Amino acid sequence: MSEERLEAERKTHKTIELDHGGGGRAMHALVEELFLGALGNDYLREMNDSALVELPGSRIAMTTDSYVVDPVIFPGGDIGSLAVHGTVNDLAMRGARPLYLTAGFILEEGLDFALLRRIVESMGEAARRAGAPVVAGDTKVVPRGKADKIYINTSGVGVVRPGARIGGQYARAGDVVLINGPIGDHGMAVLCKRDGLALENEIVSDSAPLNELVGRMLDACPDIHVLRDPTRGGVGATLNEIAMQSSVGMRLHEEMLPVRDDVAGACELLGFDPLYVANEGKVLVIAPAEAENALLSAMRGHKLGEGACRIGEVVAEEPGRVVMRTRIGGLRVVDMLRGEQLPRIC
Amino acid sequence: MSEERLEAERKTHKTIELDHGGGGRAMHALVEELFLGALGNDYLREMNDSALVELPGSRIAMTTDSYVVDPVIFPGGDIGSLAVHGTVNDLAMRGARPLYLTAGFILEEGLDFALLRRIVESMGEAARRAGAPVVAGDTKVVPRGKADKIYINTSGVGVVRPGARIGGQYARAGDVVLINGPIGDHGMAVLCKRDGLALENEIVSDSAPLNELVGRMLDACPDIHVLRDPTRGGVGATLNEIAMQSSVGMRLHEEMLPVRDDVAGACELLGFDPLYVANEGKVLVIAPAEAENALLSAMRGHKLGEGACRIGEVVAEEPGRVVMRTRIGGLRVVDMLRGEQLPRIC
Repeated sequence: MSEERLEAERKTHKTIELDHGGGGRAMHALVEELFLGALGNDYLREMNDSALVELPGSRIAMTTDSYVVDPVIFPGGDIGSLAVHGTVNDLAMRGARPLYLTAGFILEEGLDFALLRRIVESMGEAARRAGAPVVAGDTKVVPRGKADKIYINTSGVGVVRPGARIGGQYARAGDVVLINGPIGDHGMAVLCKRDGLALENEIVSDSAPLNELVGRMLDACPDIHVLRDPTRGGVGATLNEIAMQSSVGMRLHEEMLPVRDDVAGACELLGFDPLYVANEGKVLVIAPAEAENALLSAMRGHKLGEGACRIGEVVAEEPGRVVMRTRIGGLRVVDMLRGEQLPRIC
Repeated sequence: MSEERLEAERKTHKTIELDHGGGGRAMHALVEELFLGALGNDYLREMNDSALVELPGSRIAMTTDSYVVDPVIFPGGDIGSLAVHGTVNDLAMRGARPLYLTAGFILEEGLDFALLRRIVESMGEAARRAGAPVVAGDTKVVPRGKADKIYINTSGVGVVRPGARIGGQYARAGDVVLINGPIGDHGMAVLCKRDGLALENEIVSDSAPLNELVGRMLDACPDIHVLRDPTRGGVGATLNEIAMQSSVGMRLHEEMLPVRDDVAGACELLGFDPLYVANEGKVLVIAPAEAENALLSAMRGHKLGEGACRIGEVVAEEPGRVVMRTRIGGLRVVDMLRGEQLPRIC
């Protein structure tokens, strides 16, 4: 898509109408003009009720997520690339290689066509980068005011790596808890943009596909116990979930927790705790302690893992509870509830 | 779920709040209280980022659809069962046995909890009936006014029957065009309910899972060329799509086209052509002429195919065009555009 064409579309103020979801000629034109070009591949182009794909294995991971982020474009990403990354990452978190995605669009009547194009093209680019084409799609249009510009659902399937046994239920006392970089970037990027907060340095979302990084990590340590991307609810809620699923306790160390200065500053200003702020390019890794060095070195060798570090350990005491040793040496319970929840962050 | 509990929930006026989508305690309570009970199975209960499933075959069909129907409850169904049937049917249309579904919910803040429960329980029942459990899910909540009660996305995978070669591109001149019963029921049921139209006999949606019927049809005739469920855009738009994909012409016969009297009456009253009205429990079958009798008899032996009949033929002339011989003997082009489009019918 050339800049000229985008500009031309902006100038014509072409918008989405109810007809674009009606099953008739307008819908077909939208699919041919936009979706096939931006997301196109032979599966999608076949235009049948479902796509036929080949899966090289019988142990499959399957996931779904709807994206309703506001605003739809934010520093470091947009709802289109986010919808790809989020679903690709959910597959990677089971040790699966993401293979095929589906995309369901709910569009608001009156949506700017140029904005839709930008989002769908970003989605296509993210899917190509992640190596997981969008093989099936659906478009619905709802009347003006009945949605907020655009909602996207992406679902996906992937083939699980042979031997991988990864899930929230497999954390064991003695394991280490690692992360691939600083926390809270995505949530604060979206929130600052939404609130029109003018900071000295714009906070940029960490939205990224983690499948390649996870592949390297599994090469280095096939015995990873848990992988989980701390999205909504952040590291705090995610570790609580794992602690409950595995009936183990967790110990975090505040001074080990990586938070960028600008994110920490924005959190303080707005009254958020970075432990509960969403990430979209981070992975929590729980693995046997003896694998720590091999894992950290594999992670740091990938550009999405340069900031990898240990943040805590799994313990047998207080199963289901996450406790953090603070900088001043006290102990603080990291509850699932603590910290205000941010709506429409993903 | 007992009637008493539903009544109690109605009386408390419990509603969905933004917190229910926040990733914290409220969201977990919603999942545990409602989703696990209504949709529950071992895959979903594992509560990981994606579900692990076994697929008995490598040739897989994959599909997705979002449902935004208004009203969410209509005679013969609701958005929950519709979301299951629609996706199960899209898989069946490739000759695939539906195996696993995912469900993505977008809820409006303030949504009545009892209504949500009714929808999700209906969804669970439909999934059990179709033999395709919901193995992964996601819930987002958007602020009041930013959605219309509830939108649901369902995606699904199924294993394609060995030997099946079914798709919109495989219609051949000489094939017959069959359907399993009367057309236009779903669209008119939803529209009459939405408009509060009081007819003598309430029109009931045909929403139903077609996978079992399709299985019997493929047993009777493994060489079916095309299966397609005429949802949005109805039989008219669907046959146009197939005519274009296969580069063939289609001949319909108005006097063969099954339309219930009440549906025909409502269509006339409201100015719709039943050829373009959505169905949610109908399948168009295109197959070699010599298979017609075996197919019709297999279809009529299933309760969803009692009204099965031939409605037309595939011809070599005028590729891409659908023509109908009218009751008075004239020829009418059945265009893709003709007939008004109905928004939010599915």
